Amino acid sequence: MAFNSTMTKSILSQRDIAFMLYEWLDVEALTERTRFQQHSRETFDAVLNLAAELAARDFAPHNAKNDQHEPIFVDARVRLNPEIEVALQSFAHSGMLAGSMDESVGGVQLPRVIQSAAFAWLQAANIATASYSMLTMANANLLLAYGTEAQIQTYVKPMVEGRFFGTMCLSETQAGSSLADITTRAVKSDDETYRLFGSKMWISGGDHDMGDNIVHLVLARSPDGAPGVRGISLYIVPKFLLKQDGAIGDHNDVTLVGLNHKMGYRGTVNTVLSFGDGSHSPRGEPGAVGYLVGEEYRGLEYMFHMMNEARIGVGAGAAALGYTGYLHALAYARERKQGRPVGHKDPASPPAAIIEHPDVRRMLIASKSYVEGALALVLYCSRLVDDELSASTEEERHFASALLDVLTPVVKSWPSKYCLAANDLAIQIHGGYGYTRDYPVEQFYRDNRLNMIHEGTNGIQGIDLLGRKLLGGGGAGMTVFADAVERSIASVGSRAPEYAVQLKHALGQVRDVVERALDSGDTATTLAEATTYLDSFGHVVIAWMWLEQLAAIGDQPGDFYEGKRAAAQYFYSYELPIGLAALDTIASVGPLLLELNDNWF
Amino acid sequence: MAFNSTMTKSILSQRDIAFMLYEWLDVEALTERTRFQQHSRETFDAVLNLAAELAARDFAPHNAKNDQHEPIFVDARVRLNPEIEVALQSFAHSGMLAGSMDESVGGVQLPRVIQSAAFAWLQAANIATASYSMLTMANANLLLAYGTEAQIQTYVKPMVEGRFFGTMCLSETQAGSSLADITTRAVKSDDETYRLFGSKMWISGGDHDMGDNIVHLVLARSPDGAPGVRGISLYIVPKFLLKQDGAIGDHNDVTLVGLNHKMGYRGTVNTVLSFGDGSHSPRGEPGAVGYLVGEEYRGLEYMFHMMNEARIGVGAGAAALGYTGYLHALAYARERKQGRPVGHKDPASPPAAIIEHPDVRRMLIASKSYVEGALALVLYCSRLVDDELSASTEEERHFASALLDVLTPVVKSWPSKYCLAANDLAIQIHGGYGYTRDYPVEQFYRDNRLNMIHEGTNGIQGIDLLGRKLLGGGGAGMTVFADAVERSIASVGSRAPEYAVQLKHALGQVRDVVERALDSGDTATTLAEATTYLDSFGHVVIAWMWLEQLAAIGDQPGDFYEGKRAAAQYFYSYELPIGLAALDTIASVGPLLLELNDNWF
Repeated sequence: MAFNSTMTKSILSQRDIAFMLYEWLDVEALTERTRFQQHSRETFDAVLNLAAELAARDFAPHNAKNDQHEPIFVDARVRLNPEIEVALQSFAHSGMLAGSMDESVGGVQLPRVIQSAAFAWLQAANIATASYSMLTMANANLLLAYGTEAQIQTYVKPMVEGRFFGTMCLSETQAGSSLADITTRAVKSDDETYRLFGSKMWISGGDHDMGDNIVHLVLARSPDGAPGVRGISLYIVPKFLLKQDGAIGDHNDVTLVGLNHKMGYRGTVNTVLSFGDGSHSPRGEPGAVGYLVGEEYRGLEYMFHMMNEARIGVGAGAAALGYTGYLHALAYARERKQGRPVGHKDPASPPAAIIEHPDVRRMLIASKSYVEGALALVLYCSRLVDDELSASTEEERHFASALLDVLTPVVKSWPSKYCLAANDLAIQIHGGYGYTRDYPVEQFYRDNRLNMIHEGTNGIQGIDLLGRKLLGGGGAGMTVFADAVERSIASVGSRAPEYAVQLKHALGQVRDVVERALDSGDTATTLAEATTYLDSFGHVVIAWMWLEQLAAIGDQPGDFYEGKRAAAQYFYSYELPIGLAALDTIASVGPLLLELNDNWF
Repeated sequence: MAFNSTMTKSILSQRDIAFMLYEWLDVEALTERTRFQQHSRETFDAVLNLAAELAARDFAPHNAKNDQHEPIFVDARVRLNPEIEVALQSFAHSGMLAGSMDESVGGVQLPRVIQSAAFAWLQAANIATASYSMLTMANANLLLAYGTEAQIQTYVKPMVEGRFFGTMCLSETQAGSSLADITTRAVKSDDETYRLFGSKMWISGGDHDMGDNIVHLVLARSPDGAPGVRGISLYIVPKFLLKQDGAIGDHNDVTLVGLNHKMGYRGTVNTVLSFGDGSHSPRGEPGAVGYLVGEEYRGLEYMFHMMNEARIGVGAGAAALGYTGYLHALAYARERKQGRPVGHKDPASPPAAIIEHPDVRRMLIASKSYVEGALALVLYCSRLVDDELSASTEEERHFASALLDVLTPVVKSWPSKYCLAANDLAIQIHGGYGYTRDYPVEQFYRDNRLNMIHEGTNGIQGIDLLGRKLLGGGGAGMTVFADAVERSIASVGSRAPEYAVQLKHALGQVRDVVERALDSGDTATTLAEATTYLDSFGHVVIAWMWLEQLAAIGDQPGDFYEGKRAAAQYFYSYELPIGLAALDTIASVGPLLLELNDNWF
């Protein structure tokens, strides 16, 4: 199918992405840094255009097919729709898979913020297919950070070339989110490699028929490891062992045990894997051959490197799904004629497009405020990843890192909740049609529902934000966050003074909750309401993103900018007050949650 | 499969239903009315127990199968899972289908409130199968109210016996919710019958292989009918014409054109029907033979009789789906062990049941407050239907009718939104498992998503409540509602004084919005935010339902009552303040919605 620009129209908005990158985040300034010096607006635009083209040509057309024909388990292996591999090979061969990586491993050293924006096109077009690449990129980035040169040559290089795929194997059936309880164990072998034994659950891309090999990164309890998370190390466990020359060798003792059948995200095969059960015994005895990554007992730390990247990726996917749903609903609302506005009920008059109805506009402006706010946060956080790695001063790098640490649970959770809400509104705007599988919005809704669960449920993100990042460390996290918001208010608030005042007040409210909890010495009561806090805090973050966007617009005229102003107005008029009202309830609900007796349910 | 009481445990709560009916709504007092004099607590309990038994034995076991094997279009007709007919015949033969109808047509004159509670069991167990009966009952009740004696004998009697099924045919593709725009037309025939021509969309149960016949109630434009809704009449159009002796005759000119494939509710076949296209021409020429119901041009009025009943039924279905999801989540949370409470992180200690985690309790108590609040409202409204028909004084009947008029959009919309939220929380409590099709909660979520759409979208309910019921009629609707709430506060508020004060204040706030709009003369700005208003008003209604329940409990001890107190506390601490915060935004958001330029999106 030939590519043309109208095909991208309901996937994402090129205009909005250009606004965010160039008019707001000043991504062109990054080209002054050594790491990005070979780049320019032209190279960035070339990548973004290519992503839009791939999205429309190779990803979007099989999105519904992924949902209708999910991966199947045939002859002890997984069979995928063949369009998935075609799309992923296009992506790898475009150079985008390795886009942000070092030139030394075949990358082109793109800024992460450009990489995120480009990848969002693929997520919006086909989240299930895009996921295989996301996992592979996160796996590769982890090995680039902690693997040996030999491991990079052996595993990363084929991954960036699209020949190998990557997974992350953390969860186990009995442990769920509690990684302290994993029981997969590694036994040291005579040859300095390891043998792994155990079972892993929820492994996306855990088996399939694409490429030559799958590189599993597996958390396992090391020999002599302490109980809990401190005894855990990280191992490379390839599906097929490699010969000395890198050629594919024997099947490792990794067995596909079963598939999980999900409500959405169906094209991303999700597996149960068994390691070392003897089904395949390449060296005559049971045990999956594994290779230690980095040092022993630091597995969780390494995995969090990958996880933090994945959490931004989850937020990006949620934002992309919400955004594409909004664009579909918008197109439908402009086209679909039904009923007449209040006060114009003459049945002889022609029906109006439903966008004329205030309630439909309410749903559209709410959706716009969610999806553009969420995408702004995703790109802002991706920009922080760039600053963390390549800002010119140590102080800037440190600040970016500390701020990203606070924002990571928010960028994972807020888009996954509110862009799902946008998908819900997209169904409602379509009416009965939206509930049918003839329109894509119900699939977006089912797909997006996963994002509140995987890579740490939103409940876990709440505890991470409030418990670890804000209450932990004596309040340093809040200081960094408040500093960032106050800098924005000081530098740009004069262009939107009413919102600046409202945001400053909101910041005070989220800070007060933390200070009161620290002062009282009773953090448990507040922590019981961590999810509510996360949600309210997220509203403050998104309000800040809207202030930043307004400041970038200044007083420029035009529909695009007026739309941004209207969405900001909606967010500050409706969403922020409700987010803050929820914050006020923490003091009364927290004690109730701790006092609840299980028998009362 | 033999019935046993543990099978009903995760469907609905017998204890809670008994509480609501007997301890709160004093349903036993109804037996003093002539209409219900042959009944007693024993006969009520027999019906409720039978419903629980049917739910567990005939409805729940094929709920997942309905989802996995949806109706198919074979040889121009629909083929359903055979379990559906078995379940529906059990229901009809139990006498419950005609339960609340007059003895003269084979009913047992049960109060509607008992009928609703009994039917909720079937909705919770299998909403898709139960829907066929719901439609048939609503169709029969309409004909009992407006049909001729001959029509009742010909069509209602076989429906209550389970031989015929009923539908309602309102929507058309081009008209959607705007019934003024329907184009199906009726032409008078020489023999005082009519011929109908046109196409109808979204017809649930529009074709299938159950029973002997399907009785369609069809809205169509009458000969010489005015444009808009005033030219519309209601016609009986049976799938098969009947011979003089009642035997099944020729296929009427009603053709199954296609099926709509939905996200959920898959067992309820949803069809596109063509009337009078000549595919079947029983009398030699095209035209579906139809029989006028009641008077010409009053079709919409009659249909609203059915619609109002159906709207309570939609709320009941939503509450039932939310409730069963909550019970499944509760059982899972008690059983599933994972992680350790904050402050007890020793990895050598055994993991805790997840109900020990405050965030899981938060989700459970929120769900409990939604589903029990919603079920309370459904039963309260059903009780009003009884009062409307059989309260002892004209004044009481009139008051019940006026109050029900205000509450109908709320009982349809609030459960459909917040019991869906409970289903969402049930998935979240199950974690990754909840997102798989191995657990039933994701199906409940998909099924329940329909309820915000059908029988008038929630946006339409908002306009109905605020525009027609509260702003219309000069404020009489608000007076009735305020009267009812204030009576409660006066009679029972002393048993929960803090909540009574909060509710009184909340009532003042929803009343102020209406009064300000009426005083200003600009109702359009407020009406633009009708959906927001509906939501906030709904929160006040549910808070009232919780006050009523608390008053019924008094100071009785025990886990069941403590649980009610905790859920009420949660609702007044969290939900009501947020509902009221949304109300405060109407004044600022309403003007924005009217000013929005379509090009800004």
